[in-house]
Amino acid sequence: MNYQINSLNLLIENLAKLPGIGKKTAQRLAFHVLKTEREEIAELAKALLAVKDNVKSCSVCFNITENDPCEICVNPRRDKTIICVVEEASNVITIERLNEYRGLYHILGGALSPLNGITPEKLKVRELLSRLSGEVEEIILATNPTIEGEATAIYLAKVLKNIGVKVTRIARGLPMGGDIEYADEVTLAKAIANRN
Amino acid sequence: MNYQINSLNLLIENLAKLPGIGKKTAQRLAFHVLKTEREEIAELAKALLAVKDNVKSCSVCFNITENDPCEICVNPRRDKTIICVVEEASNVITIERLNEYRGLYHILGGALSPLNGITPEKLKVRELLSRLSGEVEEIILATNPTIEGEATAIYLAKVLKNIGVKVTRIARGLPMGGDIEYADEVTLAKAIANRN
Repeated sequence: MNYQINSLNLLIENLAKLPGIGKKTAQRLAFHVLKTEREEIAELAKALLAVKDNVKSCSVCFNITENDPCEICVNPRRDKTIICVVEEASNVITIERLNEYRGLYHILGGALSPLNGITPEKLKVRELLSRLSGEVEEIILATNPTIEGEATAIYLAKVLKNIGVKVTRIARGLPMGGDIEYADEVTLAKAIANRN
Repeated sequence: MNYQINSLNLLIENLAKLPGIGKKTAQRLAFHVLKTEREEIAELAKALLAVKDNVKSCSVCFNITENDPCEICVNPRRDKTIICVVEEASNVITIERLNEYRGLYHILGGALSPLNGITPEKLKVRELLSRLSGEVEEIILATNPTIEGEATAIYLAKVLKNIGVKVTRIARGLPMGGDIEYADEVTLAKAIANRN
């Protein structure tokens, strides 16, 4: 192609680096940017940088936050006897949206995956253990119901067993509104084993 | 939701304004931004603004360009006797990618659509006519094969008839690799009528 518009190509290249955005979508987005008011695009550019500049990791629970420690850790109305352990900070947002859970969180920063070099030392496991002195009574293991998430939960349950704190795992079974007919075998087996 | 991270929410809101990006995708992208190096995000922000600041419309053909008149209009090796009329600047990039067409372009800025208030005055039709004095010998109507694009081509053909320039329309028929069995009726009828 001997016809190039440099700044447009540069934008397309940069947009195509985002996950789930291919070359075609990037081009479509770039043309949208061309047609949009400069003010709106400037706001997007500012928001991108603001996130990088303002959002950090909470030094207690490793949740993302603008103030350290985070809002949840310092909130006096949260139940400090329960810690819900999740893989990623995005999981906190999902759980908070339910408005059901009133305890604290601990973000591991991933799940065990020895093949990819994710060993317990790479996760915030030591930091979790150091939070257990004193008032914590229950640890909820809310890692994903995937092979890695399950392995992480099993590993943590083993480590936490010796400490004498109550350890629970979020239930795995058929999703509400689901149909037994279409459930996969692993889920169905879990649902029967964990009947209550 | 009483748990908010302001700069993250602002970014999600801004990303969700982009076409084809819903709330969920915006959230996924925002978390990607969080995990990405600041340098890479700064580059994206810069590229966004550079497009708004550097890319303008060519005063001759209304193609997008960083220099006015655009590269194609000033290129002495382009055939100045042919003008290819398209709806949008993105069409130029697509046609240029073929490396087949060596003439000039004219970008209408859309297609006729009276119901949406797009009348000939809203498109760069007058500007096209003002380019026809002198060396132009052929106008290729390369508007989309949609109702609006066809209407625009018919309108332009009528207007250009009186000027005495040769007017052609890109062929509409079965796409290469297609199957007559699965062609829609309108396309098949066109393909038979335009047999050559």
